[in-house]
Amino acid sequence: MAESNPLPSWLDGPSKKVIAEYVEAVTRSGSPDLIPEPARMAQLRVRLEAEPEVGDNPMVQAALKGDVATLLANHHHGLVEVLTLTHSEMTTEDFSASVDHWIRTARHPRFDRPYDQCTYRPMRELLAFLRSRGFKTFIVSGGGQDFMRPWTERVYGIPPEQVVGSRGRVRYELRNDRPVLVKTMESLFVDDREGKPAGIHEFIGRKPVLAFGNSDGDKAMLEYTTLDNPYRSLGLILHHTDAEREYAYDVNPGSTGSLVEAKADAPKRGWHLVDMKEEWATVFDGG
Amino acid sequence: MAESNPLPSWLDGPSKKVIAEYVEAVTRSGSPDLIPEPARMAQLRVRLEAEPEVGDNPMVQAALKGDVATLLANHHHGLVEVLTLTHSEMTTEDFSASVDHWIRTARHPRFDRPYDQCTYRPMRELLAFLRSRGFKTFIVSGGGQDFMRPWTERVYGIPPEQVVGSRGRVRYELRNDRPVLVKTMESLFVDDREGKPAGIHEFIGRKPVLAFGNSDGDKAMLEYTTLDNPYRSLGLILHHTDAEREYAYDVNPGSTGSLVEAKADAPKRGWHLVDMKEEWATVFDGG
Repeated sequence: MAESNPLPSWLDGPSKKVIAEYVEAVTRSGSPDLIPEPARMAQLRVRLEAEPEVGDNPMVQAALKGDVATLLANHHHGLVEVLTLTHSEMTTEDFSASVDHWIRTARHPRFDRPYDQCTYRPMRELLAFLRSRGFKTFIVSGGGQDFMRPWTERVYGIPPEQVVGSRGRVRYELRNDRPVLVKTMESLFVDDREGKPAGIHEFIGRKPVLAFGNSDGDKAMLEYTTLDNPYRSLGLILHHTDAEREYAYDVNPGSTGSLVEAKADAPKRGWHLVDMKEEWATVFDGG
Repeated sequence: MAESNPLPSWLDGPSKKVIAEYVEAVTRSGSPDLIPEPARMAQLRVRLEAEPEVGDNPMVQAALKGDVATLLANHHHGLVEVLTLTHSEMTTEDFSASVDHWIRTARHPRFDRPYDQCTYRPMRELLAFLRSRGFKTFIVSGGGQDFMRPWTERVYGIPPEQVVGSRGRVRYELRNDRPVLVKTMESLFVDDREGKPAGIHEFIGRKPVLAFGNSDGDKAMLEYTTLDNPYRSLGLILHHTDAEREYAYDVNPGSTGSLVEAKADAPKRGWHLVDMKEEWATVFDGG
């Protein structure tokens, strides 16, 4: 058992201590903070590095407006996702196959590896640790739901039904006795900012006890999780402080969300900032 | 263990045999039809007796049109649900509390018992049997999702996150540092007919292997489950044939769905009709 040190990629800093103490307090039999197992719901934003934000992303705004020129003019990380998210009239099967192909073949330009190897090892360890203590883990991301589901089980151990993301409605058709679901842009739901608690309610129907975000897009989810919760809760925010191994930013006008409002609120809300540079021994596998 | 007879309320008829053989074939180690445990997804329509259909229900149509006069003029089963489903601007907490109160206090006019005791015992046995064999069980109903979730875990052992139903979008607000979700009628999704496979995809993200319905509203779900499935699948339809203990109908212009198209398709699709009168030893608890 790795239980003696379930988070080997985490240095012995304040975040590891906060996490270990929280999990112990809410899972130890007889603890005053014990949370019954069915209520141990953890929502983590464990997206692919460089996966685009749907809400704020100018590319998505362009896509929503049908501005294909802008889309094609920008060779943006995750353009494939944006195009496919907006690729109306594609069946879900074809979409899933194209995502699967892309994620296994495309390489991240900076980290020079397939995108599905650009995931944070400390996050994967944390997910496994929480599950070993009876937590049910969910991904709640601004990314396209149909874009994430083909690989989240393999990469994070999180099955499709525990992935909540942005989505449009699908339309059912029987084509020569073959049932298909066709993607549309109707009732588009953007699972970001105020949409996150809404998505959590719609899919899961109960308040989480633990939320881990990394940007202002997660502020509403962190509020929803940690304020007025009948159970002891924990709010964590990954702070991108590591320019060498990953990125360092608070304001990020590019593809990923800024961390300004949520960081400003963290002290009064009791949210804990995880300092990537100082607290993670390893970021990605093999480096 | 009741494993020697996991379905005591089912008489030894063709349906019990079909179910037992299917479950054995897809769960026995070494079987050519073995389904890996994560893919054992079963969608059952295990609604409350007399819970209104959302899609076809004239009351819901009235509600959607804002026709309050029609709503109030009809003392319809489940009026509370219809009113609350359409009760925009109510918080999800208040809604849940009102459902909880209603279901514990209102009594079914014919069966003279609380509504949450009007559930089919054979269905609850089947759910427990499937779960004992590694199936993950879901409710996929035309009923309001927020209406079902407060009691499905207690009554059926199905947690809120495995209940898919009709719904409107909710809006997140922070009111004096208290997070609330406000029900709206925006992006109304009716989880019936062609909406069922769409709802299953949106929530669960993979095709079920077993579906159990009881009306034409389930036809698309049965097609989606049993046609073009890489795994061996099973489609079951509850046939209401028991006027004495429950109801007997095919065409039902009232509150619940008719069973005409799905019944007509059953032979060519291989769907199995469960004859309530002939095959269920017990319908409700205690009678």
